[in-house]
Amino acid sequence: MATEAELTAMRRAVALAARGALTTPPNPDVGCVVLDAAGRVVGEGWHERPGGPHAEVVALRSAGDAARGGTAVVTLEPCDHTGRTGPCTSALIEAGVRRVVIAVADPNPVAAGGAATLRAHGIDVELGVLQDDAERMNARWLTPFRTRRPFVVWKFAATLDGRSAAADGTSRWITGAQARADVHRLRASVDTVVAGVGTVVADDPQLTARPADEHVPPGQPLRVVVDSDGRTPATARVRDGSAPTWIATADEVGAGADGRVDLAKLLSMLDERGQRYVLLEGGPTLAGAFWRAGLVDRVVGYVAPALLGAGDAVLACAGVTTIGEAIRLDVSDVAVVGGDIRITATPREHRKA
Amino acid sequence: MATEAELTAMRRAVALAARGALTTPPNPDVGCVVLDAAGRVVGEGWHERPGGPHAEVVALRSAGDAARGGTAVVTLEPCDHTGRTGPCTSALIEAGVRRVVIAVADPNPVAAGGAATLRAHGIDVELGVLQDDAERMNARWLTPFRTRRPFVVWKFAATLDGRSAAADGTSRWITGAQARADVHRLRASVDTVVAGVGTVVADDPQLTARPADEHVPPGQPLRVVVDSDGRTPATARVRDGSAPTWIATADEVGAGADGRVDLAKLLSMLDERGQRYVLLEGGPTLAGAFWRAGLVDRVVGYVAPALLGAGDAVLACAGVTTIGEAIRLDVSDVAVVGGDIRITATPREHRKA
Repeated sequence: MATEAELTAMRRAVALAARGALTTPPNPDVGCVVLDAAGRVVGEGWHERPGGPHAEVVALRSAGDAARGGTAVVTLEPCDHTGRTGPCTSALIEAGVRRVVIAVADPNPVAAGGAATLRAHGIDVELGVLQDDAERMNARWLTPFRTRRPFVVWKFAATLDGRSAAADGTSRWITGAQARADVHRLRASVDTVVAGVGTVVADDPQLTARPADEHVPPGQPLRVVVDSDGRTPATARVRDGSAPTWIATADEVGAGADGRVDLAKLLSMLDERGQRYVLLEGGPTLAGAFWRAGLVDRVVGYVAPALLGAGDAVLACAGVTTIGEAIRLDVSDVAVVGGDIRITATPREHRKA
Repeated sequence: MATEAELTAMRRAVALAARGALTTPPNPDVGCVVLDAAGRVVGEGWHERPGGPHAEVVALRSAGDAARGGTAVVTLEPCDHTGRTGPCTSALIEAGVRRVVIAVADPNPVAAGGAATLRAHGIDVELGVLQDDAERMNARWLTPFRTRRPFVVWKFAATLDGRSAAADGTSRWITGAQARADVHRLRASVDTVVAGVGTVVADDPQLTARPADEHVPPGQPLRVVVDSDGRTPATARVRDGSAPTWIATADEVGAGADGRVDLAKLLSMLDERGQRYVLLEGGPTLAGAFWRAGLVDRVVGYVAPALLGAGDAVLACAGVTTIGEAIRLDVSDVAVVGGDIRITATPREHRKA
C-alpha cells in the first residue's frame, strides 16, 4: 500500500512528467519525486528531451545523499537498459533507495524488467500506484504499444461558429500568429503529419514544422497525404523534398468498402514504419473518416474569436445523426494563445466502426 | 490629473463594479474605492442589486471617518436624485470628502448633475479618468442611452465543431446541466429574450428564466418571437401566459427589403417600451440577420466538448463571404462551466448594414 505521502508525490510526479509533452517524443513523459527516509520530498525531476537525463536521474541528483534509505516515486517503470543514458535501475540502486513506487509498468520490451532488477537488489517495489492518472498523462507514448498504431491527435483551427474556411474557400488566416506558432511546435513534436488530398489541392500546405523557438528537433515529421485516387499535383508543396513524404493511395494501402483509403490499415502501415505519433490536420472529410473509424486519441482545437456564418465546417460526416450519438469529449486544458482559445480534449470512449 | 493611487483605485473600482453584472440590471454596474487624505485605500464597495445601496454609500460606510478629507474614486458620476435610495452626492458631501474622481459622466438625464452639485459644495471633481475601461465594463447600461436601442447579447450553445443541432434536428442537450443553469441566470438578468419563429416551431422553448439559486428577480423578461409571417402556433409554450410575450410580425414592426421583420425597427420599438437589455437566443438565421445589421453588442457562447460532424451550424447568413470580412471579436472571458466552456466576447467594431 502506498502511503499518503507517496500518493501526493505520485500526483506531483505526473504533473512534472506532463511538462515535457512537447519535447520528449519519441520518448515517454516521465516524472519522479524522491522522498527521504522520513517521507519528506527531497528531490524531483522530469524527462525533458531525448538524449537528456531520465526523470529518476534528475530527481536523484537533486536529492543527493538525502535519497539514501528513501523512496523514489516514478510514473513509469525505471528502464533497465543502456540507451543514450545508463539504466535508471543502476542509478536507483547506487543512490541507496529502500523503496520504489511505480505507476505504470514499462510496456516496451527493450527497456522493461526494471522492477525485477530492483527487487533482485533487495529494493521494495510497488507497481500500479495511480496508474490511471499516469496512463492518461502518458497516453501518447503508451497507445502505440497497446494498439499497434500511432497515437493520433486531430488538430483543427476554426471560428467560434465552427468554420474552417469562408464561403469562398479562403482560410488564411483564421487564427493569429501565436496560435500558428503553437501549431508549429506541435508539428515539431510528432513524427507524422497527415492531411487529406482535398486540403493539399485547396491550400497547398507545406506541412513542415517551422517552430520559432530554439526547440527545433533534428528532423522533420513524415508528411502523409491520404489520396485515395492519386490526385496530388506534381507541383504540390508537399512534394518539395523538404521532408520525407508519402502519398498514400488506395492502391497501395488498400481500400475500405467506400473505395477510400482504409485508415486503420494506413495507421498499421505507419506503425510498421516505426511512426508512433500522428498529427491529423485537415480537412473536414478526412477528420470525419478518422472519427467514424474510432481512430482519434486527442483533439487540439484552436478556436478563433471570429464568426463567418458560412463556409466549410471543421468536421463533416463523422457518422453521427442524432444528439444521443454525439462524440463526447473530456476537456483536459483550455488556454488563451494570443487572441485565440486552445482547447485540448480526449474522447470519452473509442467508437469503432 | 489623477494620481497613481487614484488610477490604481479606479482599476479596482472597475473590477468591483463588474461583480454585480448578473444582479444589477436594470441599474448600472458601479464600483467605488475611498482613499483617505494620505491616499491609502480605506473603503470599497459596489452596487449589487436594484433597491440595494449604491457603490458610493457602501464604500463610504466601510471607510467611516477615514473618508473625511479623502477622495472617492467612482466608475460612474454619483447620482443627484432620490430614487429608492437617497442621492449619492449628499452622502459624499456629508462624509466630508475633499475630492471625487469619476470615470464616466452619467448619461441618464434623471440622475445626472452629480458632478455640478459636488462642485457647488466646494468638492474637487475630476471626470473621465480611465473612461474607456469603465465604459467597456458598463456597456450593457450605457449602450441604450447612446443608441436608443437595447444592449444585445447573442447567446449560443454549440458543439466544438460549431453545431447547434444534430442532423435529425435534435439538440437536447448539447451542453450540460451547469451551463444550462448559467443560461437561466443570464436570462434572469435581462429584461427581454428574443428568439426566431424557426426555433419556436422546432424546439417549442418556454423562454422563461428559471434560475436555481436565490437570485430570482421579481418578474420574467419579455419574450419576443421574431415571426415575420405570423407562424407561431397557437399552442406554443411562449403563449403560455407565464411571462409577457410579444409575437413581432412584419405587419406590426415593418419589414426590410427582404420582407422580414426590420430588426433595427424592432429594437427601437423595444426601447420605446422601456426594454434595455436583450438576450438573443436561436436560431442561426435570426442571429445572422442581427449580425448583418450590426446589432450585436456581446457574445456569450457555451461550447460543449462534443462533435457532431453534421447538423445546423450555430450561425448562418451573417453577410460574410471571404475570410477578410470575418466578424472579429475580442475575448473578454473564458470559463469552464461544468464540463463546458463559456466564451464571452465583444465585436471589434459594429458593422452597420
